[in-house]
Amino acid sequence: MNTRKALKGTVAALVASATLFGFAGLANATEGQSAAELKEHGAAQRIAGIYGNTTAKNVILFIGDGMGDSEITVARNYLHGVNGSFDGLDKIGQPNLNKGVETGTGQYTTFSLGNNSNDSLMAKDKNGQLTGSKTAGVITPVTDSSASGSGWATGTKTYNNAVDVDVEGNPQLNLIELAKAAGKATGNVTTAEIQDATPAVLESHSSERACYGPQGKWDGTDKNGDGKVDLEDAKAAGIGSCLANQLKANGGIGSISEQLLDTRADVTIGGGAKYFNQLDQSGKTLWQDASDRGFQTVKSGDVDGFKKLAAADQNKPVLALLGDGNLPTQFNPSVATKQDPAKDANPTECSVNDKWLGKQGASLADFTGKAIDLLRNNKNGKDNGYFLQVEGASIDKQDHNANACGQIGETDDLDKAISAALSKVDLSNTLVIVTADHAHTSQIVESQPIYALSTVLKNRDGSKTTISYGTSEEDLYGNGSDTSGDVEGKADPSKAQGNMSHTGTQLRIAASGPGASRVDGLTDQTDNFYTIGHALGLATDKAGQNELSKGAEVKAQDNKNQVFDITGFNGDAVLRYELKDKDGKVVSASDASTPLSGLRVQTAGTTVLDLSKFITSDAQYSLTVTGQQSGKSVEIKSFNGPNGTEGSGSAQVTPNAGNNSKPASGKVNEASQNGPLGKTGATVLGVLLFALALVAGGMAVKFARSRN
Amino acid sequence: MNTRKALKGTVAALVASATLFGFAGLANATEGQSAAELKEHGAAQRIAGIYGNTTAKNVILFIGDGMGDSEITVARNYLHGVNGSFDGLDKIGQPNLNKGVETGTGQYTTFSLGNNSNDSLMAKDKNGQLTGSKTAGVITPVTDSSASGSGWATGTKTYNNAVDVDVEGNPQLNLIELAKAAGKATGNVTTAEIQDATPAVLESHSSERACYGPQGKWDGTDKNGDGKVDLEDAKAAGIGSCLANQLKANGGIGSISEQLLDTRADVTIGGGAKYFNQLDQSGKTLWQDASDRGFQTVKSGDVDGFKKLAAADQNKPVLALLGDGNLPTQFNPSVATKQDPAKDANPTECSVNDKWLGKQGASLADFTGKAIDLLRNNKNGKDNGYFLQVEGASIDKQDHNANACGQIGETDDLDKAISAALSKVDLSNTLVIVTADHAHTSQIVESQPIYALSTVLKNRDGSKTTISYGTSEEDLYGNGSDTSGDVEGKADPSKAQGNMSHTGTQLRIAASGPGASRVDGLTDQTDNFYTIGHALGLATDKAGQNELSKGAEVKAQDNKNQVFDITGFNGDAVLRYELKDKDGKVVSASDASTPLSGLRVQTAGTTVLDLSKFITSDAQYSLTVTGQQSGKSVEIKSFNGPNGTEGSGSAQVTPNAGNNSKPASGKVNEASQNGPLGKTGATVLGVLLFALALVAGGMAVKFARSRN
Repeated sequence: MNTRKALKGTVAALVASATLFGFAGLANATEGQSAAELKEHGAAQRIAGIYGNTTAKNVILFIGDGMGDSEITVARNYLHGVNGSFDGLDKIGQPNLNKGVETGTGQYTTFSLGNNSNDSLMAKDKNGQLTGSKTAGVITPVTDSSASGSGWATGTKTYNNAVDVDVEGNPQLNLIELAKAAGKATGNVTTAEIQDATPAVLESHSSERACYGPQGKWDGTDKNGDGKVDLEDAKAAGIGSCLANQLKANGGIGSISEQLLDTRADVTIGGGAKYFNQLDQSGKTLWQDASDRGFQTVKSGDVDGFKKLAAADQNKPVLALLGDGNLPTQFNPSVATKQDPAKDANPTECSVNDKWLGKQGASLADFTGKAIDLLRNNKNGKDNGYFLQVEGASIDKQDHNANACGQIGETDDLDKAISAALSKVDLSNTLVIVTADHAHTSQIVESQPIYALSTVLKNRDGSKTTISYGTSEEDLYGNGSDTSGDVEGKADPSKAQGNMSHTGTQLRIAASGPGASRVDGLTDQTDNFYTIGHALGLATDKAGQNELSKGAEVKAQDNKNQVFDITGFNGDAVLRYELKDKDGKVVSASDASTPLSGLRVQTAGTTVLDLSKFITSDAQYSLTVTGQQSGKSVEIKSFNGPNGTEGSGSAQVTPNAGNNSKPASGKVNEASQNGPLGKTGATVLGVLLFALALVAGGMAVKFARSRN
Repeated sequence: MNTRKALKGTVAALVASATLFGFAGLANATEGQSAAELKEHGAAQRIAGIYGNTTAKNVILFIGDGMGDSEITVARNYLHGVNGSFDGLDKIGQPNLNKGVETGTGQYTTFSLGNNSNDSLMAKDKNGQLTGSKTAGVITPVTDSSASGSGWATGTKTYNNAVDVDVEGNPQLNLIELAKAAGKATGNVTTAEIQDATPAVLESHSSERACYGPQGKWDGTDKNGDGKVDLEDAKAAGIGSCLANQLKANGGIGSISEQLLDTRADVTIGGGAKYFNQLDQSGKTLWQDASDRGFQTVKSGDVDGFKKLAAADQNKPVLALLGDGNLPTQFNPSVATKQDPAKDANPTECSVNDKWLGKQGASLADFTGKAIDLLRNNKNGKDNGYFLQVEGASIDKQDHNANACGQIGETDDLDKAISAALSKVDLSNTLVIVTADHAHTSQIVESQPIYALSTVLKNRDGSKTTISYGTSEEDLYGNGSDTSGDVEGKADPSKAQGNMSHTGTQLRIAASGPGASRVDGLTDQTDNFYTIGHALGLATDKAGQNELSKGAEVKAQDNKNQVFDITGFNGDAVLRYELKDKDGKVVSASDASTPLSGLRVQTAGTTVLDLSKFITSDAQYSLTVTGQQSGKSVEIKSFNGPNGTEGSGSAQVTPNAGNNSKPASGKVNEASQNGPLGKTGATVLGVLLFALALVAGGMAVKFARSRN
């Protein structure tokens, strides 16, 4: 019998009975919890327990970045008429379109914790470096994309600017890590730079969303004009935006781009190619690293290369970054301006951008179709299913810029990507979810406002939509009394990122397929993690996640006992090691100064620990490797270095005592296998998790016995 | 066998089979329809057919006026914390809170037709008076409360400013009229003036929402200071805002207040008492009219009178108007101001308004509880169920004023009204729906905007919500470069109605109880008419509505044949009559110059036609009464006036030919019983309605035979 299934069955039965006693439904009482409670994994769920779930083989999560209900309506009005419908977006969640398909529509809350990206609130280490922790105990009603993405990717509420770390900087396992641990194929598709927040939450754990590469946001070009591309150029660019201790050079787990390679999704498609021109510790470009590690790489502009992609798996994952930055939008920008009757007389019609990759057959719909084909033909995908996220990124970016046409074209792209998916998937085994990370600034108003900028659009049905953009904090547009504006009374489309504000309203989530009804009613963004996790049978609670590391092993690559392969820490994102000599003196240890210090786990793969600099003699050593999330550790006791006589003084491992031969190896010490349980602040959930922990503990013992 | 039920069964079977052939689901294709198509009854439905319906005995519709998702979130953040929940509002539609209760949550579109309240587009008659028609063929993305209310009350899209008339000014039957025709008890509760748009759509048919009374918006006081209250005061007040031909004095069906008395809901509770001080044609106040017609009246400030109300039915309906205007809000107003760091340092906390009626036990929750008690103890309510609408009106009004505390307190009132209802009703036989008529201006933003006004609130959990108000078309607040502002850089709470804008985003609808799942997915506001109508078994299509007038009768009150009781025109809102002499010359006829000319039907009651001025001799007359909506007519041929010899020259009626005795009477001419069918522009719906019409026709013949 499959132990995971048995465990799940027990848990389900337990939760079902808990439901009868009234534990299900709204997890939170009428009065909301405090920030101190909400920072715990799972604490912000509005629907506790495992209700409304059905198992899905595959899940596709579509994210319209910044796609609140207003943005959806703006785009529908323009593209299809006020009474029209999106072909894809409006079909998801719509009952009765497909007989027997489970559907759901509802609203979810999107708040975050900590103050808005205010670094002054972050704890610093003794050198004045940020430590990646943000313990300020406040709730932030308006989230950014990184905190919101972390919410659905990990189930944990965190601060704006955080990528899959909690408010104290601790990495939280994300859906791709968990899906890989469950043997599934995985994909990550976006129109943004692949290092941008929404895709990043499936790739990495970072205290700063701007930590794109080891050199921050340097684009890998010759900035100092000396004819060479080297680290001096990064300094010249002056864009260092990583927590110092997170960098590999400082003993950390590395930047978002580097972790993307460690996470190793089967399929990754988007923009941000230029950041892979950055240099790793050995001076190689990250593109080179990707190739060296088996990735099929497609670079900016190589649409043919994209089209030719025919297979993707863990041996040959796809990394296709078709633009240097964010990908070009479908429509040329419109410019919002001050109140002006001429706009009503001549409403704007959007024009197609020549640079839009859709003109060459590389739209978001094309990416999505390709990703689905690659994933379902992948062996893991065939056998175990897949998890795919698709982001329409520039709805947000163009809303920031008060660019109505830009946001509409991107919504159209997302809609067509959903249609492309619907034409390929079977909704009886695939759960498709469509939602956003947060709502945004655009408002459909009766007439042009006097304070805000506005655009009047000519809708498909001939009517006009008047859109107001009035949430800017600073007068970048020269519209107010502040005289610092660089453009008089209109939005400046040349700005990469405008300054209109995200909004904090609850917004739409819709789903079709097994488990879809779980998005009904009022939920929270973090519930989406559980909806997807439950549908795919992933380890959604800390106890289950810790279990994923119980098969961890450490094994020397050969008889030299200098380089070690670490596997099975599937419930961990970060590892620490300690190498001691025979007297117990530490010879080498991973950095431990921040939660992002240590070795990044190669998710569901092999993490290599090279200690050849330290294990040089035939002396006896012992090595301990500990998973920072699971708390599980593997110790190899009393093994000899490369010059030791083979067979004598061989590795002593626990529990596999008596292993007398090289190479040295060890497994998790079963006696200490239960790592620290995640605390949870939700009272109701706490009760459930406590019960789950007991069950999980019992099952684990059983599992251990049956295996050994 | 109950013929209505048989008809319903056949229709349901027919639709069920149609569903199998793919007719159900999104009625509209991807591209939206034109204004010319959308103006037809039912044309804007997004979910055609009768799917997702279960019969409910009772329906309660809660409307938060202007309560978009942003307004809900603002209030939840403040009142319960960002992670909190409303006790009532968030429970409706929430799955799994009550075992076995059907639930649904989704989004709906709210657009209207015609230009925004722009009278210059309205057709005028030869005297330059508005005719109540607005044929300009445009779609309006942002609705007002009257067009949106007309949408869910009648199923017909119309222009902003219209109350239950289509864009051509034709009355459309509303839910209270149809519920009364089905023998149900009815109620209408609001915190607004009872003549305001949202309650008005259940009381009246009016081309102008401001047509509060026969003297427009005159408050019934001595305006010219002559010590008398008479029509000269109305002239002095100068507030005439009715389509002239709609006034009774001009042969029309009368103002909103007058029609309220004709509609005669069992329970009506709200504000707007002062408008009942207006004078009817005979010089009596409308309050006196109400008393004369059997209403139990409770006037402004008489909370004890409200509390003592113990029963309500068609003999003694309740008209309780507890305030002269809109009822006081729960919280004192907050004032939105320009960007100012002091607001972040000292966030606003709302204070309770001493004038709030909730302090005396007359909150919206108290109204709701009272209305439910009265309706369920009413004989019709007991036997056949009830329909009740409850409006939280000032969310909208205070949002217009940029008054955050005002809008929040009103949302709290609505939430508590929902809780009060949930504590009384049985969700296994009562459908409770919560939604809004349109979204509104307030936005939760990251930080204070520079152009817009803003308020920073201290939330229940200690966090801060920053609300932006930036959609004003005119600079009433002195915030922009326009110098006409009367208040420098802040909202003016003294304004009865501010000028922030409604918004056109899709918004939340949620439901619990039989039929609730019909609000899932993306629907339109007009779908709500069908959701409620189907649940209560009302006549939702034109053919069914026409059938409601097939039992119409006209009968003289006594042997004088001068005054006639008209009954059974339950599928009509307006009647016309024509009195001819024996030579076929018209002696008297109702005005027919506009669709609102004629006699207002006393819904499901007796409409009295007094022809004593015209039938004065013993000569022979003939009288025809025609329902303007159903097209059905009753003719009484060749009857004698009061001085005619009894028994000779008696009334000749069709079809009851041979009626030789006084009093004269007539019934619907069966041969012409099928009135004009409503056209429908929705292709799919057209197919269904065509089928329904055939079935209805067949059933009607059967029904006629079984009765006669």
